[in-house]
Order: sequence, then C-alpha cells, then structure tokens
Amino acid sequence: MFIRFITTGGTIDKIYFDALSQFEIGDSQIKYILTEGLVELDYDIVPLLQKDSIDMTDEDRTILRDYITSDSADRYVITHGTDTMPETADALADLPDKTIVLTGALSPARFKSTDAIFNVGMAVAAAQVAAPGVYIAMSGQIFAAGGVRKNRAENRFEKL
Amino acid sequence: MFIRFITTGGTIDKIYFDALSQFEIGDSQIKYILTEGLVELDYDIVPLLQKDSIDMTDEDRTILRDYITSDSADRYVITHGTDTMPETADALADLPDKTIVLTGALSPARFKSTDAIFNVGMAVAAAQVAAPGVYIAMSGQIFAAGGVRKNRAENRFEKL
Amino acid sequence: MFIRFITTGGTIDKIYFDALSQFEIGDSQIKYILTEGLVELDYDIVPLLQKDSIDMTDEDRTILRDYITSDSADRYVITHGTDTMPETADALADLPDKTIVLTGALSPARFKSTDAIFNVGMAVAAAQVAAPGVYIAMSGQIFAAGGVRKNRAENRFEKL
Amino acid sequence: MFIRFITTGGTIDKIYFDALSQFEIGDSQIKYILTEGLVELDYDIVPLLQKDSIDMTDEDRTILRDYITSDSADRYVITHGTDTMPETADALADLPDKTIVLTGALSPARFKSTDAIFNVGMAVAAAQVAAPGVYIAMSGQIFAAGGVRKNRAENRFEKL
Repeated sequence: MFIRFITTGGTIDKIYFDALSQFEIGDSQIKYILTEGLVELDYDIVPLLQKDSIDMTDEDRTILRDYITSDSADRYVITHGTDTMPETADALADLPDKTIVLTGALSPARFKSTDAIFNVGMAVAAAQVAAPGVYIAMSGQIFAAGGVRKNRAENRFEKL
Repeated sequence: MFIRFITTGGTIDKIYFDALSQFEIGDSQIKYILTEGLVELDYDIVPLLQKDSIDMTDEDRTILRDYITSDSADRYVITHGTDTMPETADALADLPDKTIVLTGALSPARFKSTDAIFNVGMAVAAAQVAAPGVYIAMSGQIFAAGGVRKNRAENRFEKL
Repeated sequence: MFIRFITTGGTIDKIYFDALSQFEIGDSQIKYILTEGLVELDYDIVPLLQKDSIDMTDEDRTILRDYITSDSADRYVITHGTDTMPETADALADLPDKTIVLTGALSPARFKSTDAIFNVGMAVAAAQVAAPGVYIAMSGQIFAAGGVRKNRAENRFEKL
Repeated sequence: MFIRFITTGGTIDKIYFDALSQFEIGDSQIKYILTEGLVELDYDIVPLLQKDSIDMTDEDRTILRDYITSDSADRYVITHGTDTMPETADALADLPDKTIVLTGALSPARFKSTDAIFNVGMAVAAAQVAAPGVYIAMSGQIFAAGGVRKNRAENRFEKL
C-alpha cells in the first residue's frame, strides 16, 4: 500500500508573516500532520503547486491531471484550497484505476484549532478503502466528486 | 448517513491529576475531536465503558457486542485502548450488515502532540466508505480485524 | 493586588477568516491566555481599541493615556501590536505611581506555536514586581520604555 | 543579563509512556518553552535533578543550594514539582545577591492545555526585574519565599 500526497496550496498551508502583516501560503504541513498521526504507511509528498484555490486556473488543473495520468501510483491524497476544491475534483474525474481524495482545511494547520489533521486522517483512510474514483474529504464526510459543493455562508461542505 | 460513536476508555481519554500524581481515564475526548474536525455528520456518542484496555474482560466485550447487536445503527466508531484493540475487534466479527471501526491513540488526546485526531478522522472515513466488517484505524492504516497486531516494542500497529 | 488588562488589537488577537481569505483582529485572547495560565489574580479586562499597530494614531495614544490617567488602578498590562509598541510606551511615560507593561505577540495567540502566552506571563509578573514606570515585555526580556526598539529584519525586540 | 535555568523534575516535565501505561518525568521542557516564547535572552540550562517533588529530600535541596552558592550567576529560574516547591524555596533563602525564581506547572508542558508556558514567562520576567531574593511564580502571581503555600484541595498557590 502506497499513497502519493500532492500539495497545491490553500488555507491548510497558510502562515502569517508579522513583518508584512500578511497571510501567505507557506511550506506544506502534510509532513507535520503525518508525523502527528504516527503514520507508518509507505508514502511520499510531491509539492506541485502553491496557490490559493481562488487563483487555481484550468491550466493548473491540467498540470495536476497530467501529472497523475502519467504517474504510476494508484492512490492519491491531494491537499487543496477549499473554495474551488469541487471544480478540481471534477477535472480529475474518469482517470481509470486511481483512488484520488482531495482534502484541505477551513482553518490553517498552523492554528491551535484546525480541521486539517482530522481531514487528512479522513483522506488517508478513504484513499486506502474507497473504490477507484475521485472524492472530497471535508466536514467529517467523504463525498463523491460531482456531488458536493462548498457552502460559503455556512463555511462547510455539503451534498449537492 | 449516521455514525454511532461508542467510547470504552483507553489512552485516548487519559488525563493527569496533579493532586494525586496519577494518570487516569477522564471524560471522552470524542466530542472535542469531532468539533475540532468541523464534522457536520449526523452522529451521537455512547459512553459504554471507561477502562484501560489491559483491564478489558471477556464480559466487557460481550457487553459491547450485545449493545451493537441489538442497536439499529449500521456504522460505528469505537474508541478503545490500544493494547487489546485487536482482541476486541475479533470479538465483534461476524455481525452482519454493520461497518465497525475501532480506533484509539498511542498518545492521549489532551497532549499537545497526539495521534488521536488523525486516527478518529481515519475511523470516521472508514465507517462511511468501507464495506460491512470490523476494522482497526491506527498508524495511518485501515486494517481488517483478524489481520493486525500491536507491536509494543515499536509502538505501532502492523499487519499480521 | 489588582491588574487591569487593556487590549488594543495587534497580531496577538489576529484570526483568519477563510470565507474572505483575510486575516483580521478578532476577539481578545487575553481571557483565554489567563485561563491557560491558571491565573488566580484579581483582574479585569478592558477592550479599548482593536487596531493593527501600524494604524495606531496619536489620537489613539491620547485615548489610552487619558483612560489610564483617570483610572484608579496601579498596575496595567496592555496588549498591543508590535510594530509601534515602543511609540505607545513612550506616549505613556511619566504617569506617576503606575506600573504599565506593554506586550503582544510576533505570532497570533490562535496559532499552535505562539509567543503570546509566554509574553503575557512575563507582563503579568513585571506588572506585579517592577517599580512604577512603563515597560515592554517581548523577546524574553523586560525593557524600560525609551530604551527598546523592534528589529523588523530579525523579528525581535532589542535594546536601543 | 544572563539567566541560568536549573531543572529538577516535577509535573512540568512529565510524559506518558503508553507501553508501560505509566507517567514519568521526561526530558526537560524548558528549551521548548523558551523557543516558543521567542526568547532572545542570554541563558543556559542545567539539568540538576529529575524528581517528583514529593520525592525531593533535604539532601537534594542541599545539592541545589550548594550548586547555586558556588555558581557565578546572579539570576536563576528553577523548574520544580509543585507539591514541595515552597519547602525548596525556603531552603534557598538568604543566598546573598541572587535573584532566584521557582516555577513549575499544575498540568504537564506536553499537554495541549498547560500553565507551564505562562509560568515560565512569569519566572523569566521576575528573575530580571525582582530584587535579590527567592520567589515562587505560580497561579499568575509572584510570591516571596516563606509567604506562600500550595492549596492542594483548590489546586493553586496562595499567600500564607
């Protein structure tokens, strides 16, 4: 069992720079989260993009799809900004024999209180257990791609 | 989709009492973990036992099995001490049409650094996605009951 | 022994709003920090301003000075943004018979890793022990007003 | 300004070993706490003892007193178990020209929720600002040695 983690940016990796009074995407928090989870799985981490999901373009999604298409792994966890996570999930549909789970966080992993660790835990389990396909792991649930949206007003993911 | 959480004690719920210089099982941390995970799932929590898993008896396992047998839910996450988690998983085998995931923690949920949140995240995902059966979610992996042991020397769960 | 806490905003109280992808000043974290510190002191908290310290004006400093001048307490801890903390300390100088300690954080109190709790601990001690005067508690040190600056390049406070 | 930290054990440094189901004193947490506090002070850390304070003997206190007497530093922060912290403070009284602050924690530093960071922050400030003498920094207060006790029923330090 091997899982490839692909990081693309988003709130999960955000950090605050006091000197600039800005909040930017920092180094990926996936390694820290997997260490925290005492994960003994065989895995690696590929930092592919570093973007707010609002800035994610069709070209970015093509880069991601092409990467996975030409890659030999069967199971993926992709960390991604929440705002356009459903669109990216749609763009990855129909890749045969691959289990792909997108996840992220509504609150940065560097926060004392964050959904990042729980969400990555869900994604790691779904990548192992779910049938080939594309999924989103957010709000305590595993959604199939195409059947989920982010409800921004309520700040949660829900079934379409 | 509804998940019933059953708590039985174990390291995940341990707390330290300074006045006594003792480390005992405290209130269940499941509610805190699900809040941290921003879980929007339909669920409830049943505190059934409050034991170190070394003290878990065959009678305790019968209580747990009887509870689930006579209960209407289809999906369960059971928090449990790690030392005898595989034995309890075995004792729950062959309950038809139920997806049961046992999890716990090698480091208490009240610790700054803990695998509790990641593990419960895995369990919640597996309870939704896995076929009926009994599973253990530990060490970043979803194991089928009967095929897993705790390696105490290495402090991790691994395939038999 | 009574300490009045006055909050004015700054990084210590910053929070990230995912919906807006913005990082703004939220509710004061002082109450949480004092609870964390198991503080049994007699105190209250006055939320006077809610500003980034870069936006702090001479008028704001006059409001703060007037408040303290007309107030009956002898000891104050003021939470403040770091960028202009020395200027505000200067503006409070020469208030007779008052021990005033300014503190804040280079990393928000809501972060997993933050200097906020340590800094407020220092400020609370200095407010009790130091002679009347104005001080800054940052970077593990207690500086007298007028003799301290923020070194932005190094992201720390140091003696002039 | 130089502070020597001396660690002697106690709850502040406790860790839980799952394999043994025991809770023991681990490596000192002082280095971690000072890093968290972004401390830029000149200091070093001397691990002198590693004991529950209930097990601290008169001989241990003599070792501690002798160490400080023959040492060249002027300012000390001593981390210590809470149960006999006042007795150790008394045993260090009357060392001329030394500012000595004892502190510790009611909840281990490795816990998510702990008074350790706040308390060490207080001790670091008092060691810089207080007149020569022996002090205890606990429960949000700086107490003079000889005038403080631990109220075990209420789990706090208070004036005699």
